[in-house]
Amino acid sequence: MEEKARIVVWNEFRHEKEHEAVKKVYPDGMHTVIASGLKKLGGVEVKTATLDEPEHGLTENVLKNTDVLIWWGHCAHGEVKDEIVKRVQKRVLEGMGLIVLHSGHFSKIFKVLMGTNCSLKWREAAEKERLWNLEPSHPITGGIGEYIELPNTEMYGERFDIPTPDELIFVSWFEGGEVFRSGCCWKRGHGKIFYFRPGHETYPIFYNEQIIRVIWNACLWAKPSVFIEDKCPNINNPLEKLSAKNLNFGKAGILQNS
Amino acid sequence: MEEKARIVVWNEFRHEKEHEAVKKVYPDGMHTVIASGLKKLGGVEVKTATLDEPEHGLTENVLKNTDVLIWWGHCAHGEVKDEIVKRVQKRVLEGMGLIVLHSGHFSKIFKVLMGTNCSLKWREAAEKERLWNLEPSHPITGGIGEYIELPNTEMYGERFDIPTPDELIFVSWFEGGEVFRSGCCWKRGHGKIFYFRPGHETYPIFYNEQIIRVIWNACLWAKPSVFIEDKCPNINNPLEKLSAKNLNFGKAGILQNS
Amino acid sequence: MEEKARIVVWNEFRHEKEHEAVKKVYPDGMHTVIASGLKKLGGVEVKTATLDEPEHGLTENVLKNTDVLIWWGHCAHGEVKDEIVKRVQKRVLEGMGLIVLHSGHFSKIFKVLMGTNCSLKWREAAEKERLWNLEPSHPITGGIGEYIELPNTEMYGERFDIPTPDELIFVSWFEGGEVFRSGCCWKRGHGKIFYFRPGHETYPIFYNEQIIRVIWNACLWAKPSVFIEDKCPNINNPLEKLSAKNLNFGKAGILQNS
Amino acid sequence: MEEKARIVVWNEFRHEKEHEAVKKVYPDGMHTVIASGLKKLGGVEVKTATLDEPEHGLTENVLKNTDVLIWWGHCAHGEVKDEIVKRVQKRVLEGMGLIVLHSGHFSKIFKVLMGTNCSLKWREAAEKERLWNLEPSHPITGGIGEYIELPNTEMYGERFDIPTPDELIFVSWFEGGEVFRSGCCWKRGHGKIFYFRPGHETYPIFYNEQIIRVIWNACLWAKPSVFIEDKCPNINNPLEKLSAKNLNFGKAGILQNS
Repeated sequence: MEEKARIVVWNEFRHEKEHEAVKKVYPDGMHTVIASGLKKLGGVEVKTATLDEPEHGLTENVLKNTDVLIWWGHCAHGEVKDEIVKRVQKRVLEGMGLIVLHSGHFSKIFKVLMGTNCSLKWREAAEKERLWNLEPSHPITGGIGEYIELPNTEMYGERFDIPTPDELIFVSWFEGGEVFRSGCCWKRGHGKIFYFRPGHETYPIFYNEQIIRVIWNACLWAKPSVFIEDKCPNINNPLEKLSAKNLNFGKAGILQNS
Repeated sequence: MEEKARIVVWNEFRHEKEHEAVKKVYPDGMHTVIASGLKKLGGVEVKTATLDEPEHGLTENVLKNTDVLIWWGHCAHGEVKDEIVKRVQKRVLEGMGLIVLHSGHFSKIFKVLMGTNCSLKWREAAEKERLWNLEPSHPITGGIGEYIELPNTEMYGERFDIPTPDELIFVSWFEGGEVFRSGCCWKRGHGKIFYFRPGHETYPIFYNEQIIRVIWNACLWAKPSVFIEDKCPNINNPLEKLSAKNLNFGKAGILQNS
Repeated sequence: MEEKARIVVWNEFRHEKEHEAVKKVYPDGMHTVIASGLKKLGGVEVKTATLDEPEHGLTENVLKNTDVLIWWGHCAHGEVKDEIVKRVQKRVLEGMGLIVLHSGHFSKIFKVLMGTNCSLKWREAAEKERLWNLEPSHPITGGIGEYIELPNTEMYGERFDIPTPDELIFVSWFEGGEVFRSGCCWKRGHGKIFYFRPGHETYPIFYNEQIIRVIWNACLWAKPSVFIEDKCPNINNPLEKLSAKNLNFGKAGILQNS
Repeated sequence: MEEKARIVVWNEFRHEKEHEAVKKVYPDGMHTVIASGLKKLGGVEVKTATLDEPEHGLTENVLKNTDVLIWWGHCAHGEVKDEIVKRVQKRVLEGMGLIVLHSGHFSKIFKVLMGTNCSLKWREAAEKERLWNLEPSHPITGGIGEYIELPNTEMYGERFDIPTPDELIFVSWFEGGEVFRSGCCWKRGHGKIFYFRPGHETYPIFYNEQIIRVIWNACLWAKPSVFIEDKCPNINNPLEKLSAKNLNFGKAGILQNS
């Protein structure tokens, strides 16, 4: 009876065209692997969109029909048009969910929603990561046990320059000695945002069933029950009767001579 | 021994030039009234800056020597240059405090730091406001009793579209029947931000000693102990010895043929 | 397909037996009015329990089969046995939802879960209250508009001595000049807690459809997807191989002679 | 000019008397080592108190003259009298700072203030710990660099069953593969609470200058500017004039016949 969550998986889709090593892992792009993983779990309608499509595939009409947008970008953050970023931000604030993956921490959309630099430490050494599940009763960790182990990942280390998350879901341990807040939730306007660290382009992380399960869980969690347009209304008529006022006070901008 | 907090009071300074009613209340601008109120309380060095100065009075050098910036704007938010907004945002994220007053809720700098619309309900009817002190042991409310009463104010009502404050200091009651989160704290990057609702241009609110006391308290609270520049470092050498890795994994962007 | 939420409405049930004015409003107790209101909205199985039943109606078996417990108490908080409070607390920390109504702010169970005094200002003058909806996209406010208006209520005013809520849903305006955080969410352990202010025994507040709708919404929101028992496990075998250690370090309590 | 923070270091002081290995590390008890470390940093008056003193050394008079209480306990949590726990809780809610060290996570005072089980995973294998500094601009981390490294510690691992911290200061990496929220801040009532993980009895951790510096920083951070007694006042006289009310509504408990 519950309606399906309408998901759009957005991918920069450049590494997969330009680098042999990435092409071997994701011949049709990371977005198709994520999309097919989500579909397998059911309860969702999944579309994809990429940077090089007109309007980056994120037309007004597409966003109007999207419950949750998943975002992966890395080498071409700067090519995403400010106008589209504003459009996505507006839709998130109206209620659309947003799931930001891995190097998306430096995407324009994540940075405008956070207000911070979103910077971190990093190292590419194919090292082991273990994501500890801090909230085993949260919908985002449904079906995930105590931790997720990834044999080879890029390292991201603290300090991650983000506003304190409303909920901290995963913290990562790295073989090389660092830690990272890998799964973070925020609400901005009426939209739910989840940042999820895993997902480098040279490792087959989006084939990992636990990773896909977390993303799928996050989609269902972030699906809005309502979209609400922004407004800043002038409420001229008070709900309660006001006492008599001094006429010398004027309206701002339309000030009375007194 | 503690060094004085270096404050800059920034004012749009337009209403005071253009409207007789405002000129009568603030003949030299709201910024001078705020500045002189703060100086009287001591422990601070106070300068002012306004929209129509070069670089809006907020040069690199000014910001470099500012601990806390106070912001009042209303009818000319759109005239603040994006470049200066970015400069201020960068400085806040490095540690500079920011105090946003009243209609500054719609300033560019507040909106980029919040990531939300910052919209609200409003009414100009010179009605009574009572700001309830929810955190009597917080440094921002030092010397303030249970509440502050303002006989005549513009009304701001919920829903105020902001990220959940880290600390909610004041909630306002309005004669006309609304409520509002009037004193809100956030940390963004290394900077502390305080939004404080009072302060309309047509009411003599910045002559109110309790209001000035709150702003002064907030300056001392927001004064940074350290400024930290943003960086996103590549930490090539792990702290711990890594196990042997599969050579087939490449560096992103500089991928190895395999 | 989704299983029904199993609700228990707990009521002290003393005022209704002892005071004519209360008896007239709630002849069979507030719990029966709340229970029947919830049932009408569907999707729930509702039972009731009261102070004077054996084990206050909250046996191990009852709690084991409860998803969300609703709590109303006022004049007999002290008669609730500590043993039962501990039992309820344990079940909340395992995942059971808890909805605390009105004067339940001073119940033992609310105080042990909050860790604070939970005190407030109060006045009985049948005054008007308006609960402003701060989170119109939150599941708890589904179907509720901008505000709920109650013509006659007891006043509760700030400062309400609670830990900062994870989410602040309602703020009340009172005719007499006060404000109050009337709808507050917390997570403790694996359980969700919602404090909802309305509900005095001498006013027919639990017949109000909006009030019942909020409580029903909160039940669905607080329903756990999983119950997790507490443990504090000794993990003797590390996931990673440890480097060689100095034998002089001993186990706490079972210290080696060195 | 600023008055010195009045600190009491409380120690269970049992391991040091009963176990040779502990006696060798802390011959006069951990409290004396902590106290002397704090004194060396200046700006504080430091006293100590232990379990086996009358009233555990925490008389009404001692607490009345304490700004910040530091708590270490482990094997005798159960011997701390409930009456003293209530007294300390009351004082924290009035404003006294509380710093809970290591195994103090299971102390009665920490559990009553948190409302949760405060359980975690643990292992004693003398392994390496690295505490990452997530908030380099926070007063608690003044003078601490990117991380603190401890060559040998007991391991504590997530999930740590605590309410979401207001501020998360340190996250630990452990050699054996776990992570832990090692430095957590909360406000309860008017008091600031800091949980700091390091400090096992068999390792010389309280001789570590960085550890003592964090504790000292936390003392200055938690020092209250004001103590406020709890009250729950009946405010019979409203600030605003009420409209006429129906006399049929009665006072709770003192209900009118109607």
